[in-house]
Amino acid sequence: MNQMEPPSIRVSEIFGPTIQGEGVLIGLPTVFVRTGGCDYRCSWCDSLHAVDNRFRSDWQAMTVEQIWDQVRALSGGEPLTVSLSGGNPAIQPLGELIEFGHREGYRFALETQGSVARDWFSTLDTLVLSPKPPSSQMSTDWARFEACLAAAQGRPLTVLKLAVFDDEDYAYAKDAAARYPHLPIYLQPGNHTPPSPDTDDVIIDITGVMRRMDWLVNKVTHDRWFEARVLPQLHVLLWGNTRGV
Amino acid sequence: MNQMEPPSIRVSEIFGPTIQGEGVLIGLPTVFVRTGGCDYRCSWCDSLHAVDNRFRSDWQAMTVEQIWDQVRALSGGEPLTVSLSGGNPAIQPLGELIEFGHREGYRFALETQGSVARDWFSTLDTLVLSPKPPSSQMSTDWARFEACLAAAQGRPLTVLKLAVFDDEDYAYAKDAAARYPHLPIYLQPGNHTPPSPDTDDVIIDITGVMRRMDWLVNKVTHDRWFEARVLPQLHVLLWGNTRGV
Repeated sequence: MNQMEPPSIRVSEIFGPTIQGEGVLIGLPTVFVRTGGCDYRCSWCDSLHAVDNRFRSDWQAMTVEQIWDQVRALSGGEPLTVSLSGGNPAIQPLGELIEFGHREGYRFALETQGSVARDWFSTLDTLVLSPKPPSSQMSTDWARFEACLAAAQGRPLTVLKLAVFDDEDYAYAKDAAARYPHLPIYLQPGNHTPPSPDTDDVIIDITGVMRRMDWLVNKVTHDRWFEARVLPQLHVLLWGNTRGV
Repeated sequence: MNQMEPPSIRVSEIFGPTIQGEGVLIGLPTVFVRTGGCDYRCSWCDSLHAVDNRFRSDWQAMTVEQIWDQVRALSGGEPLTVSLSGGNPAIQPLGELIEFGHREGYRFALETQGSVARDWFSTLDTLVLSPKPPSSQMSTDWARFEACLAAAQGRPLTVLKLAVFDDEDYAYAKDAAARYPHLPIYLQPGNHTPPSPDTDDVIIDITGVMRRMDWLVNKVTHDRWFEARVLPQLHVLLWGNTRGV
């Protein structure tokens, strides 16, 4: 082969527009580009189809142009926010895609655990850093996390988002907030009924999600943690764990 | 009487902290000061106990100090966001309360339909203007609405929030957004099952709320109205129409 290969991005799915279901951009019409592959393997992962190598054959290696054709078609060419999620989208080469989309007026939000820093983080519009609490069975390398913050250079709107399943997770969230008091923080109750990657839909325990949301609101208010915002995953409440919405 | 009366504020209820259930501050721990009395009478009002004169005897005339004692006690003296709602809180003299709270580091959000302008709007941290769509049976005086914006002097974070019950309301929301393209806009599906003011709790039609939320998300995305944020009333989903949460 004497031809230069364009950098290719491993994509699990592209869908939307639908509203962002969680965190700082909750409610905002969004097209999602979900990349395949992750350096983490959280015990309660709700996107195993984009994480587990067993689904690798479902992921497509795509060029920036191929991805952009789909995003443009889904949004009718009308600029909107593109959410880059995964898996861990930071392990893919996304800098060129962001540059490409910006030229047409699109905006980009990236959601990552903060384990891999990329210099293109500074070109994002929104960076959601979502360190994983103890219940995930993962452990956080705070030096790598700092590297992500440093890579962002304070340019994108940068926020913390933490899933909270139990008291230990809550303590971890408080610690994370104390480390980065300048970052807005979003808490969300854990979803104990993530979809199996082999099905497109499962019945989820809405009552349980609501109960844990209530628990978390009480915890935060009794604790007088008045800077934290507590939000459920709206897409789960609205559409269960159905994929592609 | 030769003594000067302190200005008194008509209060329907003071409660919290709980999370803000809707709009731009959704999820944020908040103490609510709900004033009594309104110049509107929306067909689907969800706060009739603070609107209908028949409940006037439940409203208390309170001084700034009396209100502040309660807010301070509820929040344990820890500064947080106070939501001034109603009724229409703009018909009460709230400037001094805001000044008082600011001195202790509290923040203030006001929620009003935009029918009465006050010079103290400019001292707010957040101004939520919520013009009422046709289904309310009210009509909007846009000149008065403009006066509210002018009073704010661009100082608070100012946003539009619109309830949408049907297609006509949706068209009204689009018109409002077109009038003020610089203001962020939040849409929320209407709640057809507001609480009766005579009860503290009613069963609400969660399925109906979810269906209308889904309808509104589809409407906005098919229309490519990508600046609008669509959010349900979280407090209704979480706690039904129970008062005081």
